[in-house]
Amino acid sequence: MIQERKDFIAICRKLKLEVLELLRTKYELPQESLNWVDQLIEYNCIGGKLNRGLSVIDCTKAMAPGTILTPELKEKAGVLGWCIEWLQAFFLVADDIMDDSITRRGQPCWFRKPNVKMIAINDAFLLEAFVFQILKKHFRSEPFYLNLVDTFHDVVFHTEIGQLLDLTSQPLDGEVDLDRFTSERYRQIAINKTAYYTFYLSAACAMILNGVVDEALHDAAKNICAQIGEYFQIQDDFLDCYGDEKVIGKVGTDIQDNKCSWLVVQALDRATPAQRKTLKENYGRNDPDAIAAVKKLYNELDLVAAYHQYEDETYKTLFEEIAQMVMMPSEVFTFLVSKIFKRNK
Amino acid sequence: MIQERKDFIAICRKLKLEVLELLRTKYELPQESLNWVDQLIEYNCIGGKLNRGLSVIDCTKAMAPGTILTPELKEKAGVLGWCIEWLQAFFLVADDIMDDSITRRGQPCWFRKPNVKMIAINDAFLLEAFVFQILKKHFRSEPFYLNLVDTFHDVVFHTEIGQLLDLTSQPLDGEVDLDRFTSERYRQIAINKTAYYTFYLSAACAMILNGVVDEALHDAAKNICAQIGEYFQIQDDFLDCYGDEKVIGKVGTDIQDNKCSWLVVQALDRATPAQRKTLKENYGRNDPDAIAAVKKLYNELDLVAAYHQYEDETYKTLFEEIAQMVMMPSEVFTFLVSKIFKRNK
Repeated sequence: MIQERKDFIAICRKLKLEVLELLRTKYELPQESLNWVDQLIEYNCIGGKLNRGLSVIDCTKAMAPGTILTPELKEKAGVLGWCIEWLQAFFLVADDIMDDSITRRGQPCWFRKPNVKMIAINDAFLLEAFVFQILKKHFRSEPFYLNLVDTFHDVVFHTEIGQLLDLTSQPLDGEVDLDRFTSERYRQIAINKTAYYTFYLSAACAMILNGVVDEALHDAAKNICAQIGEYFQIQDDFLDCYGDEKVIGKVGTDIQDNKCSWLVVQALDRATPAQRKTLKENYGRNDPDAIAAVKKLYNELDLVAAYHQYEDETYKTLFEEIAQMVMMPSEVFTFLVSKIFKRNK
Repeated sequence: MIQERKDFIAICRKLKLEVLELLRTKYELPQESLNWVDQLIEYNCIGGKLNRGLSVIDCTKAMAPGTILTPELKEKAGVLGWCIEWLQAFFLVADDIMDDSITRRGQPCWFRKPNVKMIAINDAFLLEAFVFQILKKHFRSEPFYLNLVDTFHDVVFHTEIGQLLDLTSQPLDGEVDLDRFTSERYRQIAINKTAYYTFYLSAACAMILNGVVDEALHDAAKNICAQIGEYFQIQDDFLDCYGDEKVIGKVGTDIQDNKCSWLVVQALDRATPAQRKTLKENYGRNDPDAIAAVKKLYNELDLVAAYHQYEDETYKTLFEEIAQMVMMPSEVFTFLVSKIFKRNK
């Protein structure tokens, strides 16, 4: 493990001890409850790629005067990085229950543990609450404290709205309604559910740490990050069907799960009436023949080429828009794009 | 339905329309998502006794100069009352999943609806988020806005901590560990899980609306409300075993559910070694003979008399402590106690 990652994980352990100390002294929790919280954090916050958290440090550095991070600023960026990682842990613990998932990051989902089960719901709430306790402890005396708290609340709300949009993107009676799979709906889900917490929040933390709280600049950052986030989600959807299982570490299930995937949206855009009928008959059915029929149609419509064309165009457009931004170092955003361009996992 | 209740429910419908309007304009939700949110609020926020919400209006009146409510103050108290009711809806939607409950307020629990299921988890998150959106819309320009938001966050955290304490009050392997059923643990669960959002939050909203944000006064209110809340929880536990099913509308299950109930804590305090052995063998088992054995033991230990003695003593102590409060109209707290004294449901 590289040193940067080691140093970063050490901050998580420090934050965990601070939370446990708060719960022991102010809330007088008994040892078994403290042990529970310890396990909850260890199991769910560490073990991912940590891209979102580490990005805060890189983005803060890109924005700092002379791109030099003082030890104080690096420490603060590290703490905010972990706030994002813990926030993601909150979303993932809850999402895994909602999606009835089996594994996460190579281990059973938290709620699958025999001793946890539905207690995981309260655990998700706690992870979210801990984030705001950490913000309070580390930043309450900063002039930008309110901006920080508002930004985290705003991002949480966008993510929950995105989840609502996703969960209500199909009729509730189990029918398949292809009319709801539009580019517009797709973009809305991707931006709200993923882009805000995956890209904007890292950039926003770096901006705020460097004293940038201007609303227009944050709106510009949201706009760019929304596009990066949509691109990221499109990659995810593409890899779900066309990625290498050995590289990704899981088997895609979007077709049988009736997901509003970029591929089905593109297929509908290009389909003849007969091909649309094929989709209608086979999409959202957990049956190998139906899945194969959908994949065959995707190939007929040459969606792999469409994807590569989209990827190249997006790369170009994104860099043009980033270059047009004023008052903000473009490195923040080019960094975020470079982390995901042409990724295969 | 009395007029006061009708007027109060009209405020909820108004808040619902405001939330829907925000989601339609700022977040551009499609109609089916708006319909979902409409249903979510109608199903889960209205239909309870509304005691917590209505208490804000009564407490605000008790504190207002000359105990006269201006229409503006009444409207604000009503909005905050609904914030508490929506917050409770958030807790109840989630608790019902965690407890695997069947019905709530005479209808199937939200997550039991065939079209909802685990989407209810995100719905719970949304209900919480809506509360903070309402606070923002209605109070952001008030000088006490930050106190209000902090108070709601503080209460949510206490409630989640209480749930954690409750859920970890027994070993995770399904064993029964009577050593964990102590008065101290009992008090901690009751105060955190119930007292804060059921009593302190109503009093705190009334205080803040009347410009009282002094920390010492809020600490005094917390202290009194903690005691009222513990009393309320003890009533709940007593009625679970000794209440009239026809009056309460449900059958108690605390004994078989291995709950840290006031009755089992009292029984353990009074039990001989032989009686403790009986408890050890029968508590937390879903078997009619075991349940009957526990109830027989409760009767042998005369816990009904112990309860009535506790109730009378608590009433006396509470009124003495309330009378000693300075700088605050005692009516706020005597009102809260009077709503629950000797209740049978």
